[in-house]
Amino acid sequence: MKVIIVGGVAGGASCAARLRRLYEKAEILLIERGPYVSYANCGLPYHVGGTIEKESSLLVATEQMFKAVFAIDCRTNCEVIGINSSKKTVDLKNHLNGEVTTEKYDKLVLSPGAAPIRPPLPGIDLPGIFSVRTVPDAKHIREWLDRDLVNTGMNEYSGANTIAKPKNAVVVGGGFIGLEMVENLIERGMNVTLIEKLNQLMPPLDPEMALIVKRYMEKHGVKVELNDGVAGFRKSADGALEVLTESGKMYPAEVVILAIGVKPEIELAKMAGIEIGKRGGIRVDDQMHTSNPDIFAVGDAVEVKDFVTGEWTLIPLAGPANRQGRIVADVLCGRNSRYRGTQGTSICKIFGGTISQTGVSEKTLKRLGETDYEKIYTYPNSHAGYYPGAKMLIIKTIFRKSDGKLLGAQVLGEDGVPKRIDSFAMAIQMGCTIYDLEESELSYAPPYGSAKDPVNFAGMVAGDVLRGDMPISHWDSIGNSFLLDVRNPPELEVESVKGAVNIPLPMLRSRLNELPKDREILIICRSAQRAYYATRILLQNGFKAKNISGGMIARSHKAD
Amino acid sequence: MKVIIVGGVAGGASCAARLRRLYEKAEILLIERGPYVSYANCGLPYHVGGTIEKESSLLVATEQMFKAVFAIDCRTNCEVIGINSSKKTVDLKNHLNGEVTTEKYDKLVLSPGAAPIRPPLPGIDLPGIFSVRTVPDAKHIREWLDRDLVNTGMNEYSGANTIAKPKNAVVVGGGFIGLEMVENLIERGMNVTLIEKLNQLMPPLDPEMALIVKRYMEKHGVKVELNDGVAGFRKSADGALEVLTESGKMYPAEVVILAIGVKPEIELAKMAGIEIGKRGGIRVDDQMHTSNPDIFAVGDAVEVKDFVTGEWTLIPLAGPANRQGRIVADVLCGRNSRYRGTQGTSICKIFGGTISQTGVSEKTLKRLGETDYEKIYTYPNSHAGYYPGAKMLIIKTIFRKSDGKLLGAQVLGEDGVPKRIDSFAMAIQMGCTIYDLEESELSYAPPYGSAKDPVNFAGMVAGDVLRGDMPISHWDSIGNSFLLDVRNPPELEVESVKGAVNIPLPMLRSRLNELPKDREILIICRSAQRAYYATRILLQNGFKAKNISGGMIARSHKAD
Repeated sequence: MKVIIVGGVAGGASCAARLRRLYEKAEILLIERGPYVSYANCGLPYHVGGTIEKESSLLVATEQMFKAVFAIDCRTNCEVIGINSSKKTVDLKNHLNGEVTTEKYDKLVLSPGAAPIRPPLPGIDLPGIFSVRTVPDAKHIREWLDRDLVNTGMNEYSGANTIAKPKNAVVVGGGFIGLEMVENLIERGMNVTLIEKLNQLMPPLDPEMALIVKRYMEKHGVKVELNDGVAGFRKSADGALEVLTESGKMYPAEVVILAIGVKPEIELAKMAGIEIGKRGGIRVDDQMHTSNPDIFAVGDAVEVKDFVTGEWTLIPLAGPANRQGRIVADVLCGRNSRYRGTQGTSICKIFGGTISQTGVSEKTLKRLGETDYEKIYTYPNSHAGYYPGAKMLIIKTIFRKSDGKLLGAQVLGEDGVPKRIDSFAMAIQMGCTIYDLEESELSYAPPYGSAKDPVNFAGMVAGDVLRGDMPISHWDSIGNSFLLDVRNPPELEVESVKGAVNIPLPMLRSRLNELPKDREILIICRSAQRAYYATRILLQNGFKAKNISGGMIARSHKAD
Repeated sequence: MKVIIVGGVAGGASCAARLRRLYEKAEILLIERGPYVSYANCGLPYHVGGTIEKESSLLVATEQMFKAVFAIDCRTNCEVIGINSSKKTVDLKNHLNGEVTTEKYDKLVLSPGAAPIRPPLPGIDLPGIFSVRTVPDAKHIREWLDRDLVNTGMNEYSGANTIAKPKNAVVVGGGFIGLEMVENLIERGMNVTLIEKLNQLMPPLDPEMALIVKRYMEKHGVKVELNDGVAGFRKSADGALEVLTESGKMYPAEVVILAIGVKPEIELAKMAGIEIGKRGGIRVDDQMHTSNPDIFAVGDAVEVKDFVTGEWTLIPLAGPANRQGRIVADVLCGRNSRYRGTQGTSICKIFGGTISQTGVSEKTLKRLGETDYEKIYTYPNSHAGYYPGAKMLIIKTIFRKSDGKLLGAQVLGEDGVPKRIDSFAMAIQMGCTIYDLEESELSYAPPYGSAKDPVNFAGMVAGDVLRGDMPISHWDSIGNSFLLDVRNPPELEVESVKGAVNIPLPMLRSRLNELPKDREILIICRSAQRAYYATRILLQNGFKAKNISGGMIARSHKAD
């Protein structure tokens, strides 16, 4: 069996290595267009920022290692320029010597990845505008940023010595790469403006969660401009760049990072005549077969099934790409491995904070017209409050109303986020209900958690909702209900809700006569805990009471 | 309904608060023998050490709060001195004024906890020997340690000024409390000797994993003495304590912490005439009913079903106690909540390291005569190796051979442990197989993980074993097989295995003729990764090959 694998990073590299392990006699050709295979593209922003100083650190495995250890014919700087799927051949061009050769395959695996979107805007090709996809990309950005550090007096902008080094950066796009690039440019001491066309950063998050991210970035000195797209670029009189936006604004910058998303590389798929899905990625089945039985595809170039909704979608992530590569190797060896779909579990460090999510977001559910769901906001400590260093976690949990099934979770915070998002991720994989979360036995010691872990706590609160013990409402639907604030007066002095009647929780039982029996009463406190107690008291005394999920904290990051 | 709850910490407090929330009209009496309810006993070692400076930080909820917010008749310094289960009354003694009263109950909930074991050894009552259970215990230890800090020249030992403050401590018992106390006494600048009667620290761990803990503690300056029990205590000529061991050794100390375990407090249960299990705890069903239908019991005093083995066992942990308390409240209100058993998920900080486990240990399986299991050792980075700060995790994964079900995991390391142990814990709760772990989509970004998370990786390695792709052996059963070391020569110079033949992996394919076809070949490398590749090459070339799980690293912590 001769297998040609096109693309030597993540999915392709995983496939090649596992195929060799499973099938010693297979002839394997691993083709990579760029100079490196199996490099750590997730590390590129940190290489730009300097956290990862050496370029060599990014090279996980080398062409030489593939040859020596895996006996794989690994060819870098080699591009597929033609595929003949009826003859089962590929035409390869060696970029070092220009030679073109044709290789026959029994099975072909496409792992071309996804390319940074580079819209055809005026000035897009001006020097200083970069994407971040490959090791050479990172190298070029570093050189661009470092070059001015050498103040030779010969910089291209003014001819004078006034510009010592680039100081202003514009990052276009507020997704993972954009945020990581912002952090790393700030680490380099730059002034950074982040421009995002959508009304929120970090598209996998719901807007009210993303608002927290925006504020956090602003707190760390980033200028964030939402709802504005880039219209073009031009060179200013002094030689610097100017970024022009659709709203008519202009941001000067010495460097621009384009991080407005990626799109599947499907040129090879088109050459091979295989099916492309509606989302623009290569269509594969759960064994990563394309529409041609001899061609497989993996990684960022393929459409995957959303694990929760079952929809075809594009979710470019390293973990899924690696697992898909393994599955293809299995299938090539006659095994019955199957890809289960992608949950979209992701995590991102931004300054001292961590942003994470898994499963489906509320906005996706809304887009699908789904109404059989509820959401809760909880704000537990990352670990026991009495142990130093505890930080507030911000957790949105989304679950099905009819059966309690966990659908998605979004977790933000400065401590303990990975512990929680992975619990949620595993829970979603295994079809957990929120009743299961209530009973989870997660690790607890004061430096790491609480006897009721934040994940348990989310389950308990959600359980209270679904069992009818705690009807809830949300800030975006309070209508003209009666508002009851059960906080203590000093808390109201800091911030209060217009029109809300204040009865501190400890006095509630003795002041029930001040409340209306014929109106819906929405109850407010700081985090919805005391309001929960109050809800229970009112419900059992014949009132129509609901807790406003997340209380005043949820109100503070309510999206517009 | 009148409910009396005896014991105001963890299980009792949780039960009381939830019962009030569910049932506004219930009459609830919460009885606590000590001066505080709902205090953070898990924080006590850190209060002794000074990490948690204020005693008040340990008080999660107060008697006053139970009264004001929950309308609960909460009584501290109040002890149950008699139970008449036919009349359904308890006799209460108020320790502040000596008054004895009798209260009738409809339902009684016992949450008395477990008492530190204090064996009747000679000298056990000498001043300076402490247990760590209550806030006053911590206070007394602090006072004892602080007292000598005031160098008045009037200390009881020598009458002179030579002893400025306690310098030497002996901690007896190497479980959670023992280890946490060791850390905190070291934090106070003391010399600490840890004496443990068993052949390992941290009994929930398997011995080879506990060996790593022992070495880690020694590296941090702790003197660890295993296989030696305390025989008694005496006062030395200069007034300090001397700890005498069964082996005849003597350790001088100015303070001794007894942390040799706890035993369920069952005096109340005996008064009530309810059934005690064989492990010495109160026997309850999965709704926490005792043998008397009107009496419930929760927390450290009860026996629980081991979630994995189904055995009755004693696992004193805060999380389970809290959940059991909630379940009793539910059941009292006619709900069908059930306790699912205890997994024994636990975690412990010790200096910069973290010790954790969930599910069943290998030694428990051995004790039960179970043979349908396999184990693997893996040593992945806590996050992407190219991102700064990655540390090696040490993971033992135990799973059923016949169906791949995950049975237990033990995770040690200095970074990223909580993320992994909680994934394993959730996986065990949901009945995951190792094949599920292979497909888990856990959070990955370079600062937090790898595209193949350590939990995935454990699943993948275990899957390779169970699918027969990688037969494994262990250091404790290598017999007289042929040993093949596939590391590079410079690595062998550091440490090599006697009798092993060295063929570096890249040369293996060309030197197969040096290997015997008629003998079992056990393959060695550093972490078992290259040996896996070698195993695959040999198996597919007709050799009988096995990988030694965990390679040289596993050898380095092989228990005797």
